[in-house]
Amino acid sequence: MRLPADQIEALTRIVGPAYVRDTRELASLDPGIDPHNFHADLLLQPASTAEVAAVLAYCHAQRIPVVPQGGRTGLSGGAATRAGQIALSLGRFDRIESFDALSRTAVVGAGVTLGALAARAALDGLSPGIDLGARDSATLGGMVSTNAGGVAAFRHGTMRERVLGLEAVLADGRVLAELGQVRKRNEGLAVERLLIGAEGTLGVITRLALALVPADGPVATALVALADLVAAATLCDRAQATGAATPTAIEVMSGNHAAAVCRALALTDFATLAAAPYLVLLELAAADAAGAEAALIELLGPAVESGLVLDAVVAQNEAQRHTMWRVREDWAIDRERPGGLWYDISVPLSVLPDYVLELEQRLAAHDPALGLVLIGHLADGNLHVTVNATQPITDRYEEIAPLVTDGLAGVGGSFSAEHGIGLEKKATLARLGGAPKQALMRGLKALYDPRGILNPGKVIPD
Amino acid sequence: MRLPADQIEALTRIVGPAYVRDTRELASLDPGIDPHNFHADLLLQPASTAEVAAVLAYCHAQRIPVVPQGGRTGLSGGAATRAGQIALSLGRFDRIESFDALSRTAVVGAGVTLGALAARAALDGLSPGIDLGARDSATLGGMVSTNAGGVAAFRHGTMRERVLGLEAVLADGRVLAELGQVRKRNEGLAVERLLIGAEGTLGVITRLALALVPADGPVATALVALADLVAAATLCDRAQATGAATPTAIEVMSGNHAAAVCRALALTDFATLAAAPYLVLLELAAADAAGAEAALIELLGPAVESGLVLDAVVAQNEAQRHTMWRVREDWAIDRERPGGLWYDISVPLSVLPDYVLELEQRLAAHDPALGLVLIGHLADGNLHVTVNATQPITDRYEEIAPLVTDGLAGVGGSFSAEHGIGLEKKATLARLGGAPKQALMRGLKALYDPRGILNPGKVIPD
Repeated sequence: MRLPADQIEALTRIVGPAYVRDTRELASLDPGIDPHNFHADLLLQPASTAEVAAVLAYCHAQRIPVVPQGGRTGLSGGAATRAGQIALSLGRFDRIESFDALSRTAVVGAGVTLGALAARAALDGLSPGIDLGARDSATLGGMVSTNAGGVAAFRHGTMRERVLGLEAVLADGRVLAELGQVRKRNEGLAVERLLIGAEGTLGVITRLALALVPADGPVATALVALADLVAAATLCDRAQATGAATPTAIEVMSGNHAAAVCRALALTDFATLAAAPYLVLLELAAADAAGAEAALIELLGPAVESGLVLDAVVAQNEAQRHTMWRVREDWAIDRERPGGLWYDISVPLSVLPDYVLELEQRLAAHDPALGLVLIGHLADGNLHVTVNATQPITDRYEEIAPLVTDGLAGVGGSFSAEHGIGLEKKATLARLGGAPKQALMRGLKALYDPRGILNPGKVIPD
Repeated sequence: MRLPADQIEALTRIVGPAYVRDTRELASLDPGIDPHNFHADLLLQPASTAEVAAVLAYCHAQRIPVVPQGGRTGLSGGAATRAGQIALSLGRFDRIESFDALSRTAVVGAGVTLGALAARAALDGLSPGIDLGARDSATLGGMVSTNAGGVAAFRHGTMRERVLGLEAVLADGRVLAELGQVRKRNEGLAVERLLIGAEGTLGVITRLALALVPADGPVATALVALADLVAAATLCDRAQATGAATPTAIEVMSGNHAAAVCRALALTDFATLAAAPYLVLLELAAADAAGAEAALIELLGPAVESGLVLDAVVAQNEAQRHTMWRVREDWAIDRERPGGLWYDISVPLSVLPDYVLELEQRLAAHDPALGLVLIGHLADGNLHVTVNATQPITDRYEEIAPLVTDGLAGVGGSFSAEHGIGLEKKATLARLGGAPKQALMRGLKALYDPRGILNPGKVIPD
């Protein structure tokens, strides 16, 4: 069912015709990761909190469903839309409103990208304390709404830990102005923090106060080959325990991932490393480049000698470092075997090697044709688990999900690490979420959004 | 109104008679900071989640008010009780249930003290990442319920950032089991995290999964005299920017606080320093003691030469370091001028010097007899503001509060930093809290605790 013309007119009056896109225009624009992001009837691009409030007050009154959108880089369908819905872009909230180097805080619009804040922070020797591959398109508002994680979470937490305060518009247009810029702020129930990770189901985040951290010094990078994940976990522990330098990345991948990248990009330098069962991309920072490299060699030398590490290459220049990151970030395996399934789990590091061994066994017992590819953020115990086959298996998500996810809660892990629930993991949440939690989720939704206009059908169990 | 005998009997059957204290017994026990902590009809000491669940299910059915208690070190009346109420102690949840050095996590009962966890963590070169004066009596459950802060929050966040997962019993006895032990865990709305800082108004926290951090190396400590808070903020910034060592404490105090301690304890060594308008206790950690001391001298030497710092003493041994901490932590001024008022605010570091100057002016204009004493955690912009006079002014809290708190939100600060709302700051919250927030707080209370049995009268606006 399409929105009636009078509603479209009313909404257009609020944000101005220049900032409305209809279905015809949306069809010609880039929808981001998920084509459904632009299946809405309208895309509205308000410029101010007052405009967002007016849009939501109107949609609340008229019961029009609204899907908030950031950089549209989400992987779980949290920004997907359909006919009869409005997509509400925060893209014009793209201003770093204040930057306080002494207090190490910034106040930003929800549409500022991570990359833009990182660039501003670097001018003062600071950093947002969070990093991920989509840094130049992911918006900070979207990252808060999904509680994004990334490469640096083991040091500075996920996006939740970066948020000092936020401003949001509630479903009925009221403004929740909780933009405190201090670490210690306990002013009763943290009603606004519930929006962190809520994927736009409870309110629309418009502005953020974020904590910054000192920028890291120069880094030294190595690609390390390991026989198994027990060795990888030990290396991870040692890297964090070294006092001489700060680990800034401890990324893990299975050999089949690295080998596929090396094949696809003809990276002959790393082909031997990529023949190992597992690789770790290890990056250490220190006050100067020589110190970082010395610390890296001090860590890896004895590890090679003792046999903990099979082999290691330390990047000799920026180009080689860049190539190592391509080995981690390229996704050649998905081009070789398209139509795989992607799960996103966490498991405590001490349990991770056994989890993977048992997962391999479960998959093999279920269907010997299934392949397993792992990449992840090792120190967080966060694995992106790809299950694939020679043919696409896109329609087998729910069939295979229990094999990947269902033992995790018992060992302190999670079936949903950093990509959010969106639409993709709703069935898993319904299967594994405790009954009291699911009841509270429904109650919270009814409290914050009594008419259910915000991102309907996402996250909240039916 | 007292609890009837049949209710006392029913509750006694649940926890066992050995773990019930009646009013007569409570009168002879130490109530902690606040005598009202033991004004309840009964103190119950359950030993298990099942017992807590049974107690709450019964109290929910019978509409009996329950006040959860940890170490009873709270400063805002959050654990205060009165006739007709039950105090529910988590003191027997005192077990470190698991400790995972590789994953850097611990699962603990809510009654484990911070000191006990710190001691266990130190055996593996780890730390809880949070520290405060009451470490040996404050329980981790209480610290989560009040979102405690302390000395290390500028590095590792407040208690909120230390919590990976938690188990809690809801008002009606249902158990919320969200004890994930990983940093990345996004399983829908964070219904359980709302209990962090809720001071026991939404549920009773029984068990916690906490993130640990690497322990700091040896420290070097200095007491530094400064002419004003602008200089103190600059020193704070430089201490955090030094790559050579890690600041582990940047505590600030006004000279009148330090001078009172020096008088009371006859600390003649520091009398000259304490004559300065402000002092900073600065502690740096490094891989070894010599490195920490070298970094401290490298930081302070140029600061003294340039006049940024008036004077500084570096502790030459553990005894002198201990004395410096006594200058910070002793409360001689309250013995000299008893009956002062204690406020607890945060303000961004860049604004802090102006805030204090204007506060001095407001107090002087309001009543020239009022004195001002400041101690605080400088890098967080967290000040404990004491207003006193030659006579006790205990009954003037609400009269003076607006002078201390009411400009703070506009500059990104907070009227309530790390001690919670409890009873003490309810009027301030009602005055300064936004209407949408207060409405949501009441709605959340009704959702989580529909009969209002949990810590009634605290935190939530009437």
